[in-house]
Formats: sequence, structure tokens, C-alpha cells
Amino acid sequence: LAATAQLARAHLVNALIDSLVDAVGPDHVLTDPEVRAGFETDWSGRWSGTAAAVVRPADSTQVKSVLAACDEHGASIVPQGGNTGLVGGSVPRPGGQQVILTTARLTELGEPDPATGQVCAGAGVTLAALQTRAREHGWDAGLDLGARDSATVGGIVACDAGGTRAIRYGTARARVGGIEAVLADGTRVSRMNGLLKDNAGLSLEALLVGSEGILGVITEVLWRLVPSPGELTAALVPLSSVPAAVELTARLRESVRTLEALELMTATAMDLSLAYLGASSPAEKAPLYALIECEADDDSLAALSSVLQDAGTADRASVAVDAAGRERLRRIREAIPEAIASRGLSRKYDIGVPAARLSEFVATLDGLVDTYAPGSLLLYFGHLGDGNLHVSVLGAEPDNELIDNAIFSWVAECEGTISAEHGVGFHKARYLSLVRSSAELQAMWAIKRALDPHLILNPGAVLEVE
Amino acid sequence: LAATAQLARAHLVNALIDSLVDAVGPDHVLTDPEVRAGFETDWSGRWSGTAAAVVRPADSTQVKSVLAACDEHGASIVPQGGNTGLVGGSVPRPGGQQVILTTARLTELGEPDPATGQVCAGAGVTLAALQTRAREHGWDAGLDLGARDSATVGGIVACDAGGTRAIRYGTARARVGGIEAVLADGTRVSRMNGLLKDNAGLSLEALLVGSEGILGVITEVLWRLVPSPGELTAALVPLSSVPAAVELTARLRESVRTLEALELMTATAMDLSLAYLGASSPAEKAPLYALIECEADDDSLAALSSVLQDAGTADRASVAVDAAGRERLRRIREAIPEAIASRGLSRKYDIGVPAARLSEFVATLDGLVDTYAPGSLLLYFGHLGDGNLHVSVLGAEPDNELIDNAIFSWVAECEGTISAEHGVGFHKARYLSLVRSSAELQAMWAIKRALDPHLILNPGAVLEVE
Repeated sequence: LAATAQLARAHLVNALIDSLVDAVGPDHVLTDPEVRAGFETDWSGRWSGTAAAVVRPADSTQVKSVLAACDEHGASIVPQGGNTGLVGGSVPRPGGQQVILTTARLTELGEPDPATGQVCAGAGVTLAALQTRAREHGWDAGLDLGARDSATVGGIVACDAGGTRAIRYGTARARVGGIEAVLADGTRVSRMNGLLKDNAGLSLEALLVGSEGILGVITEVLWRLVPSPGELTAALVPLSSVPAAVELTARLRESVRTLEALELMTATAMDLSLAYLGASSPAEKAPLYALIECEADDDSLAALSSVLQDAGTADRASVAVDAAGRERLRRIREAIPEAIASRGLSRKYDIGVPAARLSEFVATLDGLVDTYAPGSLLLYFGHLGDGNLHVSVLGAEPDNELIDNAIFSWVAECEGTISAEHGVGFHKARYLSLVRSSAELQAMWAIKRALDPHLILNPGAVLEVE
Repeated sequence: LAATAQLARAHLVNALIDSLVDAVGPDHVLTDPEVRAGFETDWSGRWSGTAAAVVRPADSTQVKSVLAACDEHGASIVPQGGNTGLVGGSVPRPGGQQVILTTARLTELGEPDPATGQVCAGAGVTLAALQTRAREHGWDAGLDLGARDSATVGGIVACDAGGTRAIRYGTARARVGGIEAVLADGTRVSRMNGLLKDNAGLSLEALLVGSEGILGVITEVLWRLVPSPGELTAALVPLSSVPAAVELTARLRESVRTLEALELMTATAMDLSLAYLGASSPAEKAPLYALIECEADDDSLAALSSVLQDAGTADRASVAVDAAGRERLRRIREAIPEAIASRGLSRKYDIGVPAARLSEFVATLDGLVDTYAPGSLLLYFGHLGDGNLHVSVLGAEPDNELIDNAIFSWVAECEGTISAEHGVGFHKARYLSLVRSSAELQAMWAIKRALDPHLILNPGAVLEVE
């Protein structure tokens, strides 16, 4: 009986594969386990699953055919961009028959339109490629994050990522001038006219931003560039406490109009990074550090200097006076995730807490880790300017869900969010009810079912499937 | 038989009224036809309908009770803010039993949070009140439009209005940090934690922005303020043609980083306004005028001057050197709608066309009006910076739908939008398919039915009910 079931299953998979080959051609349906493996585990190494196949459509017409093939054969689709989300949203779930749809071939990238400052980018264009294209034309992408070489426009928009410069330019949502996407039923929706004001009907594209592939597959984005900022300066500032960091944030936001980034890292995080980089510390010992970036014009420099004076940290701040120095400081903050990864698996929490509750939140974090993940190492870093912290717990047992539950519950109590910019993915779907009411979850499910009645798009991500 | 039907109907209305009185108290259910009349016709005078009652809930709990009462008695709800939308979206439709839900009492207005630059505003707070509150605390609302004394936060967000300063700060969507709303089933959804990065689930609030009351009643908005711009300067520039205006736009966007507004008006529009104001023209005769506002810092002034020099218009531009002069120039542009209204009814088209097609669009407009509304007066004005034009046709028969169809079809051909910032409302629902594909309309309907299965929220607005 088991053998017959297995045979029937193999037959079903074969029929699915045949349809996928019809959709994208034999070279772009990857079924070899070794080749597939490169897509089946995410960057963190924590999340993985087995896919029936990996498909690489070349355009939205092929995306449509892939969706139809999966729908016909009862398979579901996991859209995948750079696979750097860290929450299991871009790799297959346990159980079920899933096809990874990689946007790796949707890499068309247009020229910026000087009249509107917008550029058309395929979902698979990496952030780094977009940034380069923008700079070539005197613009800036208005968004930056460490995974820029892998993270894609589609993934960034699907998770509404914000990165380090959201404090000035907002998150991906603010950069979206239009979206083309394929919905579950294979229809294509698109608003790519580039108009800043266009309220002709419900905004499907606003709904798609942050939808993590559960409502549609984003195939193209009209990206709003920003004017290039002037020359930047960076300052690394040792801080005595989180309240001091929160106070510094308020002052900087008030005074420095060109604030481009305002990052935080604990001494533990910085030391780990310095060790990984083989670099020595550019600042004196302190429990916390802020990394500030702003334009290097006279007004901004005077405002920055005055805020640091008032905070009593001006003497101890390490200020970069040239591009190389700025890059050195920036690299310390940016290398933290790599430094963590070099130590093996860790538990990661991309959370956000309002400024007013940040000190309280952090004060209790140590205790939670001691209680629920004794013996492990806590560190956090992230975006002080918007309350988005990336918390890592190194050494906790990979299946220790007590610490997940403790941290997310505490975030919710502090009126924060369990998902700031990486997405909810598969990891956090079960915790979403901590921060969203049952009315809100019900409305989300109603929309999900309305647009994807067979639940073929990334099932189990964002909204928990019972 | 007719008398029996009338009696039965009266009985139904009475039962509805009783429930509404239970919901908000007798003082806030307005049924007197004379009192109701003040709510039943919009600012343009073009759109009106008879309501069973006007209700004034005091908070979201009362909004919830009003929705439940209407659902129970088979009535539908027309949410109303300042009633300045001009597209029939905030007044009752012909036929059906409708209740106007005015947000006039949802006027709570908080203090701006210095750490985040956000302020909590009830849906019924006028834009003017919000602007005043922002300025009192050293911030700016980051949005302005002529109807500021009537238009409300709820209505502005529900239509994703942008006004004159969208070129710098984006539309209402960019100002929304959070929304509280009541859905058709009486559940409340809310994201008011003020976090810039919060991707915990589908963004219901992003969907509510621009939804014109068909998915929920917005009761409160967390509004993102912007830093106060410096002292402003204004210049009125005579222009020879639309291509010259489009060229000027590109140059200004490239060079003047503090561009706050870039408005366009035809000589006809300006003359009408000057006559209405009893003022003389501050500029020499030309077919078109641009009104430019930017900060008055040295860099901006130098950039502005250089662009005007290059355009050969520097000598003919009227530049305001003080606040009073700036206000005089601004008032000419702002009084156009009032000047039009003083001439009786007109047909109004709030449309947007991409910069690359603007000249072509305008070139054909005259001919369309000559053909489909002979003898009437065409004028347009609006937001050159974002391609959003407000086109008015004075003297066309109020029931002349040929000209509506001709203009909207031409907009669609030019890849523009039939609804830029006033909303689709009732007026344009039948034309929405000109600019949205059947797949898009189907997706919008799927969402509408998922969240409002009994179609009690603003039926006939945005999506045409067969």
C-alpha cells in the first residue's frame, strides 16, 4: 500500500514538473536535489524545507503559467527573492507540495526618468544593482541594508523592509511608485504610470507592499528614487545606557535635518564584529554605541556637534572625516550579522518598540534570556532612529520556543511589533495574534481568501494555516 | 396599495431612526429636511441626494453602533468629512436608503510626539486645525490644499488627497503613520503604535488609504508631521506653452531641492480669479502661468534664479520678496475654484497625466470641449509638479455626459488617471474601467465583498453597483 501511495505521489509530482517545464522551459525547472538545495535553506541556516522544484520564470507571462500549473496540480508557490528574510518566508514549509518561484531572472532594470525620478526594476534586481543605477544618474535609491548584494527589489517590497536609512526616506512603501504583480488566479494587476497622485480605485499595490507573497507574486516595481544626499559624515558615539540613547535620538531628530542613519549596537555586538573583522575598537569602552550619519554640510555638522556637546559625548565620539573612515565605522555595524553567522546558528528577532518603551523593553530582555535560554549570549543592534532592533540569541537550542514566546510576548506588552522589516514569514505566523487583534486577523484572512481561495500563494507564511 | 407600501416604508425608516437614536442619542440624529439639507449636497452643488438621516457619532464605539443599526435595517452608510470631494462620494446616491455618517464630532486632536513627529487626529479634524497644531509645536503638516478649513483628516486620507505640496512631501498616504477604522461588521482595526517599521501582517491601513469609505469608516489617524520648511519665496512665471511648462518642471525638480509647490494655471483661470478677487494681474500677458514656491535660503534662490534665467523667463517672473507678496500670488491660484463656483455650476475633472504626455493631452482638450460641449468655457489649473490637473468646463449642460466620457477616455489614452486626489466617488465609478483592467476591478470587488458582504459602506462609490 505504501509503495502504491508513493508511486501515485511520484506520478503527481511528474505531472506537475511536466506542466512547469511547459511554463518556463526545461532549463529553468530545477529538480536535482543538489541544485535545489541552494534555494531550500535561507541565509540564516535556520529555515529550510524540501521543494518539488525550483522554477525560474523569465517574465510575468511565465509567472502566470507557473501559478496555473501549480493550481492545477494542487501545489503551492513560495516566491523567493534574495532569500535573506531570516523568518522562513521564502523557503518551503514542512509538509505539502511546494514549488519555489525564484525571481532570479526578473532582472530587467530601466533608466531613471529625470522628470519623475522613478526607475522600473524587475522583482529580481538586487538592491545593489538598483543603487548603482541610481547613482549613475545622479539619484539615490533612498534605501540601504546590509544584504544589498542579495536582497531583491521584489523581496524588499514584499516585506516592506526599511534598513538603515528609513529614518530619512521611510521604508520600501515610500519608495514604491507602482507595482506589477500576478495574482493567484493568474490575472495581472499593474499600476506603472508613475503618477504621484492616482486614486483610481482601491490601491492593490499598497496592499501588496508587505504582503510577503501571500496575495500575489510581485514581478516589477516602479521605484521612487531620491535626490542624492551631499557628502556624508559618520560618528561613533559611546553611550552609557538605553535611556541616554533614546534621549540622543530625540535631540538628533530635532536638530539635524539631514540625518541619514542612526544605528545602535551593544558592546557585545560590536566586539563580535571587531573580532570577525580583525579590527581594533575606534572608541572607548561603553555598554552601547550609536552610529550616526548625516550630511557633511556646515549646518548639519554644527547641529551634530552641538547635540553631542550637550549630551556630553563630543570628546568621546569618533568622527570620520573622510570616506574611508566613514566606511570603516559603517562596516563595524554592518558586519554584525556576518559575525553572528560565523558563530553558528542563532535565534533572531526583528522587532520594533516605540521610543517611549525602548528602555523598559531592553531592561527586561537580559532577564528573559537568562530564564528561558540560560547560558546563551544576548546581543542586539539595529535602528535606533525608528525603534527597530535586531535581537540575536546565540547558543540557544534551535528548538527552544520558550525564548521566542517570551521575547515576542514582551514586545507585545511594550506596544511594539514582532515584525519590523524582515516579515512575519513562517517563523512568526503563530505569534501574530500577540500584536494583531482577532478582528484584524479576520480581516486579513478575508482578504487572503478573496484573492487566493485555494491558498496556493505562500501558505503558512504571515497567516497561520491550522 | 401604494399607500400601504408608503406606510411600510415609513415604519422601516422609523425603526432605523430609533436604532440610530439608541446609537448616538437623539440630539445627533438629524432628520429635519432643512437641517439635513446642509449635508445632502456637496460643495460643488452638483451632487446631492436624500438621506434617511444624518448621524453624528462621538467616537468609534458609536460609529460601530451606527453601522450595526444600518446593517440591521437594510440601510447603507455614506461617510462624510468636509464634503469637499466634488465627485459625489460623500452624499447619498439616487435610490436606496442611506444614512450620512458625519465625522463632525470626531475632532479630538492630540499633541505632537517630539520623538516621532506624529500627532493623533480624529477623522473630523480639519486640515487647518491640524496645520495650526503642527506649527504651534515647530512642525508642519506636510500637506496643504485650498479647502483646508473644511476638508478633514478622515476625508483627505480616505481620498489620498495630495494638494499643492505633494511634490515635496507626497500625498496623504505618506503622512499616515496609523489608522483606526471601523469595518462593516462593526469590528475595529487599528495600528496606532507609531512605529515607522511595522510589517506584522497585511497592511489594512494602507488599503484603507484611498478607499473612499467603501471598506471602513476611518475614525482616527496618526499623522506624520514634517520638519517646518524655512522661510518660503514664491514666483509667478508667464509661460508660452505647455511644453515650456513641462520643461520648466524637469529643470526645477533637478535643481531646486526645496521645491514646495509648482502650480499651473491658464490665463482664463487666472483672469477669472483676478476678477473674482478684484485684483490686477501681477504678471504680463501669457497663455499660461506657473506658480513656484521654494525655501528662501541662498542655495534655493540661486537655483531658482538660474533655472528661470535659462528658461528666458527671469525678467518676466513676478517674485514675492515678503510674506504678504507671497500670499497675494498664492491667493490668485487658490481662489480659482471659488471664482468658478461664483459663475454657477460647472463640470469638474480631477485628472492626472504623466509629464511626457501632458502637452499632447492639453493640446486636444480644447477640441474635445468644442465638439462635446460647444459654447462652454474650458479652463484648467493644478499641480504641474505631479501632473494632476483640475479641469473645469463652465456652461456645459449639467446632464451632458458626452463631455465626461470624451475627457476621461482621452485621459485613459494618455496613460493618465481619471481620479488623482478627489476620489472616484459616484461621478466616476462608471468610468473606472477606462483606467483599471477587468482583473484589477475584479480584485477590488473581491476585497470589497470580503470586507463588506452586505455592501452597506458607501455603495455605488468607487465600484459601480449594477
